[in-house]
Amino acid sequence: MRFEEKLAFICELDKLKSIIRANRLHDGSRRENTAEHSWHLATALLALADEPALNIDLLKALKIALIHDIVEIDAGDTYFFDTKAAADKAEREERAAQRIFGLLGQPLAREFHQLWHELEEGKSAEARVVRALDRILPFLSHMANHGMVWAEKGMSRELLLSRMTDLKALPPLWQYFTEAVDRAVAEGWLAKR
Amino acid sequence: MRFEEKLAFICELDKLKSIIRANRLHDGSRRENTAEHSWHLATALLALADEPALNIDLLKALKIALIHDIVEIDAGDTYFFDTKAAADKAEREERAAQRIFGLLGQPLAREFHQLWHELEEGKSAEARVVRALDRILPFLSHMANHGMVWAEKGMSRELLLSRMTDLKALPPLWQYFTEAVDRAVAEGWLAKR
Repeated sequence: MRFEEKLAFICELDKLKSIIRANRLHDGSRRENTAEHSWHLATALLALADEPALNIDLLKALKIALIHDIVEIDAGDTYFFDTKAAADKAEREERAAQRIFGLLGQPLAREFHQLWHELEEGKSAEARVVRALDRILPFLSHMANHGMVWAEKGMSRELLLSRMTDLKALPPLWQYFTEAVDRAVAEGWLAKR
Repeated sequence: MRFEEKLAFICELDKLKSIIRANRLHDGSRRENTAEHSWHLATALLALADEPALNIDLLKALKIALIHDIVEIDAGDTYFFDTKAAADKAEREERAAQRIFGLLGQPLAREFHQLWHELEEGKSAEARVVRALDRILPFLSHMANHGMVWAEKGMSRELLLSRMTDLKALPPLWQYFTEAVDRAVAEGWLAKR
């Protein structure tokens, strides 16, 4: 493919900086966008790369982390606990993947599309670790700003515990989480149920 | 090292989302922060991964791209064409690297520190490609918003051509640049000298 087409894809990526998530920065000052979240995810993965429990192909996991939310350029961000918006999420995101990865030409378009599907399916070791980090990052920010988004959304310990089981892919992460969630309740940042 | 120390490093990373660069989003709506810029850089690298001229260790290049500006958490962003601020940049950034990478413990702290130095030295193939992309991304945004930042900074074609030679690491990038810079002058987005 021509080099200019790759530059067009790189320019298209800029739009992810304007996709706003429910999540806030740790200092609570503003909501986070999906581009900076994606950097945080990929770099967190680097920081955990030498964990004994983390037996993965790091390059593949980084690719998944970097592209995992590009579909949001067209499909928007779907809040993880919003079951109504989740109904047509798969269809919206599949259309977005076709268009945006399609800008790249083959074989990269196919590779990116497959990596993105791999995350959605969540079966490979790489997909499971990226999902676990994708869950813990918002949790870390909620802890840091004393549950600003939990208060907005009426979140509870009970609901969190039932939806965060992806964290078990990395046992020390699950252990940290179960202790922290109890602390959040004790501090009054999170409702019990 | 204890898992909680890694989580502390991951939390520290959040601050890079509040470091503001001179550069603007393509749509001109606001200035860009360093976290989202770092994602853009790493993902642009993925998009170019199959370029024939790009004979690099992709995993290493991605690591460099992801961590290349973390020192700005302490040292702030130094505008590439600001020669005054550049005077004590190296010292400010070295101190920052010691503190921030140091949060991680060994061997990761040493690895990150070395990768960051490798970029600053710009000798390895990976460092040269990351630098080339780090130069072209702001240029792409200036082209997209018709030189908003060029006008602010009084930038000229002459100065740009003299400072953008890093792009030669990727010949099709240099070719795109020399053509685009002439177009920017013709359109009146950029002064000739």
